[in-house]
Amino acid sequence: MNPLDPLFEPRSIALVGAAHTEKKLGGVVLKNLLSFGGEVYPVNPKYDELMGIRAYRKVRDIPAPVDLALILRPAHEVPDILRDFGGRAKCLIVMSSGFAEVGETALQEEVKRAGKEFGFRIVGPNCMGLYNPYRKLDTFFLPPERLHRPKKGNVAVISQSGAILSCLLGAVKDSRSGVSKAIGYGNAVDVTESDLYEYFSGDDSTEVVVSYLESVIDGRRFIRSAKGLSEKKPLLVLKSGKGTSGQAAAFSHTGRLAGRYEVFHSIVKQWGIREVADFDELLDATKALSYQRRSRGDRICIITNGGGSGVLAADECMRQGLEVPAISGEKKERLGHLFPDFFVVNNPVDLTAQVKDEDYVTTLGELRDEYDGFLIIALPNVFGITEKLGSLLAAAKSGLGKPMVAHIAESGITKRITSLLERAGVPVYPSPERAVRGLRALLSK
Amino acid sequence: MNPLDPLFEPRSIALVGAAHTEKKLGGVVLKNLLSFGGEVYPVNPKYDELMGIRAYRKVRDIPAPVDLALILRPAHEVPDILRDFGGRAKCLIVMSSGFAEVGETALQEEVKRAGKEFGFRIVGPNCMGLYNPYRKLDTFFLPPERLHRPKKGNVAVISQSGAILSCLLGAVKDSRSGVSKAIGYGNAVDVTESDLYEYFSGDDSTEVVVSYLESVIDGRRFIRSAKGLSEKKPLLVLKSGKGTSGQAAAFSHTGRLAGRYEVFHSIVKQWGIREVADFDELLDATKALSYQRRSRGDRICIITNGGGSGVLAADECMRQGLEVPAISGEKKERLGHLFPDFFVVNNPVDLTAQVKDEDYVTTLGELRDEYDGFLIIALPNVFGITEKLGSLLAAAKSGLGKPMVAHIAESGITKRITSLLERAGVPVYPSPERAVRGLRALLSK
Repeated sequence: MNPLDPLFEPRSIALVGAAHTEKKLGGVVLKNLLSFGGEVYPVNPKYDELMGIRAYRKVRDIPAPVDLALILRPAHEVPDILRDFGGRAKCLIVMSSGFAEVGETALQEEVKRAGKEFGFRIVGPNCMGLYNPYRKLDTFFLPPERLHRPKKGNVAVISQSGAILSCLLGAVKDSRSGVSKAIGYGNAVDVTESDLYEYFSGDDSTEVVVSYLESVIDGRRFIRSAKGLSEKKPLLVLKSGKGTSGQAAAFSHTGRLAGRYEVFHSIVKQWGIREVADFDELLDATKALSYQRRSRGDRICIITNGGGSGVLAADECMRQGLEVPAISGEKKERLGHLFPDFFVVNNPVDLTAQVKDEDYVTTLGELRDEYDGFLIIALPNVFGITEKLGSLLAAAKSGLGKPMVAHIAESGITKRITSLLERAGVPVYPSPERAVRGLRALLSK
Repeated sequence: MNPLDPLFEPRSIALVGAAHTEKKLGGVVLKNLLSFGGEVYPVNPKYDELMGIRAYRKVRDIPAPVDLALILRPAHEVPDILRDFGGRAKCLIVMSSGFAEVGETALQEEVKRAGKEFGFRIVGPNCMGLYNPYRKLDTFFLPPERLHRPKKGNVAVISQSGAILSCLLGAVKDSRSGVSKAIGYGNAVDVTESDLYEYFSGDDSTEVVVSYLESVIDGRRFIRSAKGLSEKKPLLVLKSGKGTSGQAAAFSHTGRLAGRYEVFHSIVKQWGIREVADFDELLDATKALSYQRRSRGDRICIITNGGGSGVLAADECMRQGLEVPAISGEKKERLGHLFPDFFVVNNPVDLTAQVKDEDYVTTLGELRDEYDGFLIIALPNVFGITEKLGSLLAAAKSGLGKPMVAHIAESGITKRITSLLERAGVPVYPSPERAVRGLRALLSK
C-alpha cells in the first residue's frame, strides 16, 4: 500500500469547479471524468445536476469521503476549499494557478499548511493533473481532440510542467508506445518527484519512468528515490533551468529555485541516474525503452545501404561511448563470399545502393553473436529495398535477443516499413544519430 | 564564366550506360533526362533508339561534342570511356562505384590521369550526380517516386555521400524549402568541395549552401574557398568521420582519409566557417536560412504559453551562446497592465494556458524594438489558441524585420498553423531546442 494509491487509483472523485459546458475548463474535466468507473461528485454552487450526473452546491454537501478531490477554482478560494475537505479526502490535486509562480507565496504556504493539518497529500498547485488509462481516469483540463491521449502502455510520465507533460504524451502516442500513468505536479507544495519515483518503483504496470524536472525540492531524498527507482527500472531525467535565463524562467514557472545545474549534473552522474540532454533525446530514449528491454554491452554493429549515414552513426556511437568494432577476419571472409565485391564488409557494413532486402538478414544472421546491439539503416529509395524489408527484419528481431533499432530514411515506402518494424518492437528513428541515441538507452555497461 | 558552368547548366548531355527499361539504373537516369530541354545522347551498344530518342552504339558515334557526359558503366570500363570522350566533353560525372572505396586505387588514379590528360572536369567516381530544377536537369539514378525531388529554391546541397544527399533533399522538400542545385561528388577525384564552394559563391540562385563532408582533399584550398563563400552567403558544414570508427567508415565509403577531426574543427572555428553538430542541426539551420535573411544580434525574446517549453528554450539559448535578457521595467509595466495577473511578464513571456491568439501579437508589438530575434512557442491544446494564430503571426512577421521562428507543439490544429506560418516565411520546429538552433543560424554577432 502506497500513500499515493488513492491518487492514481481512486474509487471516488470530487471536482470543485465543475461546469456545465466544455467551453469552461471545469466542464472539460467533468466531461473527461464521465468515463471513470468510480463515483464522481461535481461541485458547483449553481447546479444540482451537471452533464447528466448529480451535482453538489458545496463541498460539505458531498455525501461521502472521497479518495481524490480535484480543485479548479481561483487561487484565493483554494485554502477554504481545502479546509472544507478536512477529514473527507485522501489526496487532492490543486490545478489552479496563481500561487508562488506569480509571487503569491503566502497563499501557497497556506495550501501547504492545510495539507499538513488535515493529513492530505496534495499535488500542485499550478498543475495539469493526471491520467491513468488502466482506470479510464483522466483529470486533464484539455479535451481529447486538443490533446490526443496515448493508449495503455508501460511508460510513466512525470512532469513538473503541464506543457511538457502534454508534449510528452503526444510524443509517446506518435511513437506507438503507451503510458501506464501520467502526472503533472507543478509547484510541488507536497507531492514531489521523489514521492512519485517511490510510487512508480512499486507500480507493476510501469516499466520505464520519464521525469521532466525544473527544481529538486529535497536533494537527498531525490538521490535516494531516483537511485532506488533506477535500480528497478529505467528512469530518464530531463532537468531544465540549466543557465541563469533558464533558472529565472523556471522560477517564474513553478516558483521553485532550479538550483545550480552543475551540482545537479555531477550528483546524478555520480549516482548513476540517467540524465538526457534535451527533449528529443528524452523522446528517443523513452521510445527505445518502451519497446525493448535493456541489456549489457557496448559493441555496436551498424548495417546500412547508405555509406554517409553509416559514418554519421559511427560518429554518434563514439560520442555516446559506444564501440563500433571491426568485423572479425572469419566473418569478414564469409560475408565477402556471400556478397558482391563492391559491398563494404566492414563495420558499418555498407550494402550500397545495390542492396536487396535479404542482405540485411544475411548480415544479421552472420554477426548476431559478435555484437551487443544492432543499428539497421535503410535508405529505401533504391530498387532493392521493398516493403518486405519490414517483415524480414521483424522476423530477424524476434530471434535476436539483443537490442536492435532502425533509421529508415524518408521515401515512398518508409511509413509501411516503419509500421511493420514498430509493431514487431523495433523502434524507428528519423536520423542516424537519433537512432544511436535510442540504442544507447538500451545498453548498459 | 565558371569552369563548372557546363556541369550545372549544360546544353547537351551524353549518357553512357543508358538502358531501355527503368528496371535498370541507366534507364532511370535516361527517363529523368527526358524532361531536360537540351540535347541528350544515350549510348548503348545494342540500341539505335531508347525511350523514343535516338541512341548511339559507341561514344565516338555521338555527332557533336557535349558539355556533360554521364558514365554509368562498371568501373573497369571507365578509363576507356573517358579516353573515347577525349576532346569531346567538358565535364563528366562518373557515377559508377568500384574505385578507391573498395581498394581499386589504381583504377581511380587512371580516371584522374585521363581527366588531366584531356582537360575534363570530373565529378565522382562513386557518386550520385546532380539536380538543377531551374534547368529541369536531373541525373539521379533514383526514380522520383522513390526520391521526391524538392521544388526550385535557394538552397544548394553539396554532399560527398549520395545517401546523405538524398536524405537532405527529402528534408528540404519536407521543410517547404527548395533547392537551387544539388550535387553528390563521391570520391572527389577532381571536382572537390572547394570547386563547388567557388561555383556557388557566384551562383545567383543560391542563397544558402549546405555541405556534407567526409574528407577534405586540400586543406588550404578548403579554408580559402569556404571562407570566401561564407563571406557572401551562409555556408553550413557537417563533417563526419569524427572518431576512429567514423574515420574508418568514411575511408571505406569514399576511399578518402577523413583526417583528424580536432584539427578540422579548430580550423573551421578559427576562420568563422559555420559547422553544425549533426544531421538534425544541419536541417534546422538550413530551414531557417532558406526562409529568412541573417541579421546581427544575440538578444532573444521567447514568447510561450507553456512554461516548461520556455525554460527548455532558455536553456538551449544559453548553450547556443544567445542571451535571454529580462524585459525592461517600462515594457514590463505596460504588458502587466494589458494582461491578467497570472501571465508571467518576464523573458520568457509565459501567456499560460489562458492565452488568446491576440496575446502573442500584443507581446510582439510591445517588444519588437527591444530584442534581436523572436521565438514563438505555442501549445495549441488550450482553447485560446486557434488557427487564427497562424495568420496573426504571419502578419506580425511581415512588419517585424527581424528573425522569428516558432515551435508549435503537436495537436489537432498544428498542421494548419504551421502551414500558415511557413507560407509567411516563419520556420516551424518540432521542439523548443530545435527552434532555438534554427534561430541561432539566423543571428550573427
